[in-house]
This record gives sequence, C-alpha cells and structure tokens, in this order.
Amino acid sequence: MLKKKILDKRSGILLYGLTPPRDSNSKEQMQTIAQKHIQRINTIDIDALVLYDIQDESDRTDLKRTFPFMKTLDPYVYKNEYLSVLNVPTIVYRAIGKYNKSEFTTWLEDTKKEDNYSVFVGASSKNQEIKLSVKEAYALRENINKDLLLGAIAIPERHIKKQDEHLRVFSKIDQGCKYFVTQCVYNLEAAKIFLSDYARYAKENNKEMVPIIITLTPCGSSKTLEFMEWLGISIPNYLKEDLLESKDILNESLEICLNIFSQLSKFAKKRGIPLGCNVESVAIRKEEIDASILLLKEVDTIMKTI
Amino acid sequence: MLKKKILDKRSGILLYGLTPPRDSNSKEQMQTIAQKHIQRINTIDIDALVLYDIQDESDRTDLKRTFPFMKTLDPYVYKNEYLSVLNVPTIVYRAIGKYNKSEFTTWLEDTKKEDNYSVFVGASSKNQEIKLSVKEAYALRENINKDLLLGAIAIPERHIKKQDEHLRVFSKIDQGCKYFVTQCVYNLEAAKIFLSDYARYAKENNKEMVPIIITLTPCGSSKTLEFMEWLGISIPNYLKEDLLESKDILNESLEICLNIFSQLSKFAKKRGIPLGCNVESVAIRKEEIDASILLLKEVDTIMKTI
Repeated sequence: MLKKKILDKRSGILLYGLTPPRDSNSKEQMQTIAQKHIQRINTIDIDALVLYDIQDESDRTDLKRTFPFMKTLDPYVYKNEYLSVLNVPTIVYRAIGKYNKSEFTTWLEDTKKEDNYSVFVGASSKNQEIKLSVKEAYALRENINKDLLLGAIAIPERHIKKQDEHLRVFSKIDQGCKYFVTQCVYNLEAAKIFLSDYARYAKENNKEMVPIIITLTPCGSSKTLEFMEWLGISIPNYLKEDLLESKDILNESLEICLNIFSQLSKFAKKRGIPLGCNVESVAIRKEEIDASILLLKEVDTIMKTI
Repeated sequence: MLKKKILDKRSGILLYGLTPPRDSNSKEQMQTIAQKHIQRINTIDIDALVLYDIQDESDRTDLKRTFPFMKTLDPYVYKNEYLSVLNVPTIVYRAIGKYNKSEFTTWLEDTKKEDNYSVFVGASSKNQEIKLSVKEAYALRENINKDLLLGAIAIPERHIKKQDEHLRVFSKIDQGCKYFVTQCVYNLEAAKIFLSDYARYAKENNKEMVPIIITLTPCGSSKTLEFMEWLGISIPNYLKEDLLESKDILNESLEICLNIFSQLSKFAKKRGIPLGCNVESVAIRKEEIDASILLLKEVDTIMKTI
C-alpha cells in the first residue's frame, strides 16, 4: 500500500519516526525497548515507520551540542532483528558517509530480499569526513537494487537562503528518488515558499510532483528547543517566544505543529502538491511520546478533512 | 484626538493615504481633483489623512520604472490651498533630500501656526543626491518647532535582511518620532518578525512602544504589482501567484490585505504593541478607489472586534 501510494504520487502518506535504541544497550535491553516501540506502533494507523540513522553533526556548527552524541543501533538491524513482528513497512534512513563502498554494497544486496524503503542522507557539513558520497550511493543502488524505494530529505529553510531546494528535489527525482521527507518544519513561511517554487517549476517544466512528507516534532522543553535550533531547524523569533513563554510548552508546540500542517495542507491542495506527514518522536519522556501519538491522530483527521 | 491617540500610544489609529495631484495640473484642475478627494474623505471616519511627497526613486534600482515619474504638488501646499475645508488632521510627508536648509527652515516656521503632523522620509538610496539629511532635518525641527508631531517610516522587509529595523525605530524615537508608518505590507512574516523584535526589545530595555501604523494597499492589476515590487515592496512568491492567477486581482488583494491586518492585530495585541492602519490609495481607477474605501471600512471593523 505504501509502495502504491508513493508510485501513484498520492497525498496523505502518514509516517511515524523513531530513533533506534542506543548502541550500548544489551540485547535484553534492546528487546525491552523494542517491545515498547511495537506496542506503541500497534496503536496507530500509519503507512510506514521511519527509523533514523543518527550521525554526530558537531562539525556542522561551532555551537556546543545541547545533548551529547550517542551512537545508536543501525536502523536496518533494529528493523530486522527487533521489529520484525510489526505489520507495517519501515523506511530506513541511511547516513551514507558512515559506510564504505563494500559495506554499502553488502547492505544493498541484502535489501533485495523483500520490499525495502530507504532515505539516503548526505554529509551534515562540507567538513564531515565521508566514506561514500550520496551520488556514489545512488549509483550503487541503481546497479544493485533498483527496487529499493528511494526517498530523500528536503530542507525548506535552506530554500530561503539558496532558493534552489526545488531544483535539488527535481535533480534527486532524476536520480531515482520517489518521495521526500522534510527536516522538521517550524518555519511555515519557508515551507510555503519552497512548496510554491516546487509546484511552479513542475508546472512550467511539465514535470510530475512526487510526495513531499512534512516532518512535525513536538517540543517538550526549552532544552529540546535549543537542540532543535542546534540541529539547524529554523524557528521564527515569535514562535520561539510563544513556546518559551507558554505555561505548557509541549501543548503549545502541538498547536503550532497542527496549525502548520493544516495551513500547508490547504496550500498544497490548491497547488496540486501531494503532501504527507511524518510525526517524529525523538524524546523519551512519556508525556512527549503521548503528545506525538496525539499529534499523529490529529494530523490524520486534518488529512481526511482537507 | 489624533494628537492624544499618538501621545497616549494607543492602538487603532486609522489613516487614509493619498498622493497629491500632478504638479502640471492647472489651478482649476487641481480644484476639481481636490473636490473629489474632499468628497471621498468626507464619507470615511479616519483619524488623519496622509499626503505623500513623491520622489523619483530610479537611482535605488537598475530596473526600469513601471510607471514614469511625475512630479506632484507639494503635499503641504495641497493641504493648505486645496483641502483646508477638511475637518480632519493631515500627516504631511516630507522627502527631506528635496529641500535645502533654508527652504526646510521656512517650512518648519510655517508649521508653527497650528497643530501639524509630519513624517520625514530619507533618501531612497545611497546614490541619491540630497540637499538635506534626515538627521539635519530632525535637528532643525527640534530647534524650530518641537510641537510638529513627528513620525517616521518603518520597513519590515528590511528587518529580514538587516535585523535592525527595531533598533532604527528606537533610535528615531530618541530623535523625537512618536509614531511609525510602515511601507506597504504584503509580507506578513516579515512584519511579524519585526514586530516581535520590537516588542521584545522594548520589554528587555524597559522602553515604551509607540504606535506602529501598518500600511495596506489594494493592488488592481499586474502592472501595479510590478510597480509595487519596483518600489521595493516584498511580496512572497505564493501571494504573487495568487494575485496573478486570480480572476479578480483587486478582490484577491483586498482579501490578502485583510488577512494580513487581522493576523497582525491579534499578534500585536498579544504583545502589547499599539497597532494602527494606513490604507493607501495611489491608483486613479474608480474601482480601485472604491476598493480602498471598502478596505478602510473593513479594517475599522477588525480594529473594533480584535
């Protein structure tokens, strides 16, 4: 169903994004965490689970990382060894620079066993040492497993500075990408400006638009907010203020996320852009997890009404 | 009443902005035009009329001016010689660079006769040849007529690039400015970001905020839109598209203006910013004039309900 929705370029793809457990967990601890993840995912109606591939992005910025970098389990391993009972497709992120050609080739061979979905993520900065480039990874996938259903990330706030995010998207479509998952969106205006250029370029050049999946992330504390900014997520000054001055930052962030998605849905519908949503749950506090589930359900309602 | 509203730093100041007739008109033609202006203004309930002082801004940009530059009658002369029957205060714009020190001094002496309101406007670019600087004009006003109720312009889109528009505003307040009239706003996001920094700076530095008067202008044709962009007004790509693709560009622009003002009113109220509105009517077609009157009345309703 996910495959069909993607290839039909349909609106309404709904994803839920998780970070695999830390690498330092024992096998038993992994199983305990996986059990909780499975229970949670079984309560929601999604098209796919997204599993992130965390990389240390400290060379992207001179600012101190809000939270220390922790190595996490390979998402493909997590999916296969711990989440195999799940009855839902999984989109496995791949931070390409972490793998050498031989490792990446082996992995691509393995993905041929069944329908697999992946989003390749490039270096977080020009300074990052990489073993493989995204371009090489695209070529390897083309040679080894053309059926691996490939997505890529899109960063609307980058469009404000460089005004070429829509061109990057179409270039990646030419390289085999069939859907795009955005960086977490707190800058509605940047998303509108990017989507508008995406739709106009498609119209003017007679190209079809593929699904753009908007990532939303609840924010439960000022420290999380700081970390989001460290990650390069653009948050307008007034929204930051609304969050920091709110008595209930988590609930305030839910309202902001829902407003953003609701506005973008109408905006995309008017322009014929297939829009989806990825609700990211990267926090571990129970109330933040509950908030992500609530957000997902509300997004589902918006999708069904707009 | 306008004086009191300004000095009390109140929300809800409502202005209507006009360009004086071309300088080339005969006295009879001037009177005919003035008669129409008077009739129009008598039908609306405003705190003051704004009269612009048009300057050729061609040295600000290399792009071809959409409409040719036409010299217009001095707004102060227009007010005194043709609009004196009007029972409403007038805010006279002064493009400072056009006047030498002696001319400006004579004018300032004349403004002492009664309550007068003026907005001093600086050069439109660094390349413009000026006879007097705004700083000199502020100093002359301080010496000659401290009672001249001084305003200044604010340009929210400049804040996006330079992030110092709120500092310019406070610096002008220190030089005697008691209210600010913005450049025409079609970029809601830029206005929010500017206003947010304005309010935060006031709070953090224990300063009082003076009224910010948002200028709205209906746009009746693609040529007017082009001219607005030539003037340096920032219009987000998607709004430009909405306008150009609309079957009724004038009505679409009214809806955009009203949405902008309605959102900014709530935004400003939350932050304690005294917000006003200036509806600008620079077009000469009857339907565009009617649209400006309609916009003014709708803005008045928003002011009374938010």
